[in-house]
Amino acid sequence: VSQIRRDALSDSWVICAPQRDARPEEFVEAQLPGPPVLICPFCGGNESATPEATLVIGDPEANDEVTWAVRVVPNRYPAVTDGDRRLEEGTGASRPSHPDLFQVSPLSGGHEVIIESPLHVQSLTDLSERHAAMVFDAYARRLRYWYGQSGIDYVVVFKNVGAAAGASLRHTHSQLVASSMLPPRVAELSQRVKAHYEREKKCLLCQMLADELGEESRIVARTPRFVAYCPFASRLPYLMRVVPLEHQESFESLETAAIGELAALTRRLLRLLESMHSPAAYNYVIQTRPHRTACSNSFHWWLEIFPRLTKTAGFEWGSDCYINPVLPETAAGHLRILSRRIAPRGDRGVQVDFSG
Amino acid sequence: VSQIRRDALSDSWVICAPQRDARPEEFVEAQLPGPPVLICPFCGGNESATPEATLVIGDPEANDEVTWAVRVVPNRYPAVTDGDRRLEEGTGASRPSHPDLFQVSPLSGGHEVIIESPLHVQSLTDLSERHAAMVFDAYARRLRYWYGQSGIDYVVVFKNVGAAAGASLRHTHSQLVASSMLPPRVAELSQRVKAHYEREKKCLLCQMLADELGEESRIVARTPRFVAYCPFASRLPYLMRVVPLEHQESFESLETAAIGELAALTRRLLRLLESMHSPAAYNYVIQTRPHRTACSNSFHWWLEIFPRLTKTAGFEWGSDCYINPVLPETAAGHLRILSRRIAPRGDRGVQVDFSG
Repeated sequence: VSQIRRDALSDSWVICAPQRDARPEEFVEAQLPGPPVLICPFCGGNESATPEATLVIGDPEANDEVTWAVRVVPNRYPAVTDGDRRLEEGTGASRPSHPDLFQVSPLSGGHEVIIESPLHVQSLTDLSERHAAMVFDAYARRLRYWYGQSGIDYVVVFKNVGAAAGASLRHTHSQLVASSMLPPRVAELSQRVKAHYEREKKCLLCQMLADELGEESRIVARTPRFVAYCPFASRLPYLMRVVPLEHQESFESLETAAIGELAALTRRLLRLLESMHSPAAYNYVIQTRPHRTACSNSFHWWLEIFPRLTKTAGFEWGSDCYINPVLPETAAGHLRILSRRIAPRGDRGVQVDFSG
Repeated sequence: VSQIRRDALSDSWVICAPQRDARPEEFVEAQLPGPPVLICPFCGGNESATPEATLVIGDPEANDEVTWAVRVVPNRYPAVTDGDRRLEEGTGASRPSHPDLFQVSPLSGGHEVIIESPLHVQSLTDLSERHAAMVFDAYARRLRYWYGQSGIDYVVVFKNVGAAAGASLRHTHSQLVASSMLPPRVAELSQRVKAHYEREKKCLLCQMLADELGEESRIVARTPRFVAYCPFASRLPYLMRVVPLEHQESFESLETAAIGELAALTRRLLRLLESMHSPAAYNYVIQTRPHRTACSNSFHWWLEIFPRLTKTAGFEWGSDCYINPVLPETAAGHLRILSRRIAPRGDRGVQVDFSG
């Protein structure tokens, strides 16, 4: 029997329908190599193929010509550009009788690529824990930079891996979009957690987290400062939310040791996804406090990781209601079992506890 | 320069970023044959492989053992089931301290498959106009049936074609989900159009349509009763909205001639998408008035068709804001040009005008 669950954070309802997981598939979607990219623009030595870097984090152990470990550059095909904030031609609404029904605005900001290594590796899990920490440090530094710019209301860091997750290049990288518009759903989220705080004098995510920790069945992994779990009302199968155990408004205010711990935990969680499917297709997104519009007592930052196992189809488009064929408690149990089968790889500076 | 546009109907904002369309792709996603399905459960002669039909539309021209043209059956792997409306074990929230943050409800209703032909054809465009009209007639009949059942607040008809659009079987088919819950976003839509009507004494979609007809650049095709256009703030590239020119609340109240006209128009629009990409991956969804919750003066039904050319990625997940790399006026112009290159196929009972 199906059930619907509500995610109090996003105010979205999801249909949990485990009976759908058994349906036969006549299709197999494969990721084939596309036209050869002769020169990978992200590889060390090809720096001239990208715009000038906005941040370079050096590699103290480098002993040849490539001296950087992580490099941030403007995206050559940006979703958001540093325009002059005037609308150009072609707004598509020349003389509507009802201009309020055809609203259009200029959008400005930036779109950057975080190149995670000068080597042509294809996953964050191919990097050492120390190197992964440098990647997360780059996220924090660029978030601080963009939130310091006037007219920027929203900055989001995300990673797309695999064709099904919207990636277009293989070389391991992440992205950052900074925008003059706060997306309406993010504004609603900020309002919702603020209203909750004013009513309860407690952070909504802190309260939900306390119950998830008490329930235990959906916990995937813990470190001293963080916990990863499959939330009660996950819209996608095997979605994991990683949150700091103590209330904290902004990812970008993390201290160095905490960044290293988060990077190590994320790297371990990605290895779980990679062990489930190869090649893995997944996204992750960092939801940090929008500086100008959310208040620091009520907004608790998080990182969300989700493999792309299902397709949003006609039903989801029509209803904006997702169907999740794997109960989050089943997914978390499966991930904990998987973690025991994965041999350690690379350094183990951070202890990650998968005992649930 | 990017711009953001608001769709007044869905109250969603979209980022129009045509500069992104040029980005290189290192991946090609291919649709490969999966494990062989030895007996297609939808083919004529294999009726015992599906649950008993809830509707059979006969073929008056049939002259052999298979006498049906369209057959509707319960989905064997339903998203929504006809439960007894009690929650069973495993609700995932045993003793939360904050039960309001872990809401869960039973969900009941039905999930049906509309098998569009006894032959193993893979597209609605392989059927004649007359046969396509029988498919749309089946939609209307099952919508009327389900909206006549007590406790059903929402019924949606949709079609998934191709792996990227969430299809799992090739044999041409559509689906219907009937649910005891009105999805929150549909409830908001109903409220929004109702508020607009009370304020303006005019239907929101009628007003938007008048401006789209005046603007012309986004019109794709017309028939006497319908128009297909790429809406001003389309969230996906090449998305087409098909609407009746005169205000009409419910798809399922269409008279027979109008159903035939809509089916013929839809079939022609799908041929445009199929001529763009092969194999095509697309969805369509019929948004008709939720009987119990939307009022008939303000709700104007529509059908939305969209090819699956882009992937929702980390940015969309984080912001719930889509990036559309093709301006709707560009898409509509391209579709009109394509229409001139497509030779007529099958009967031409309905005149479709692609002159824009």
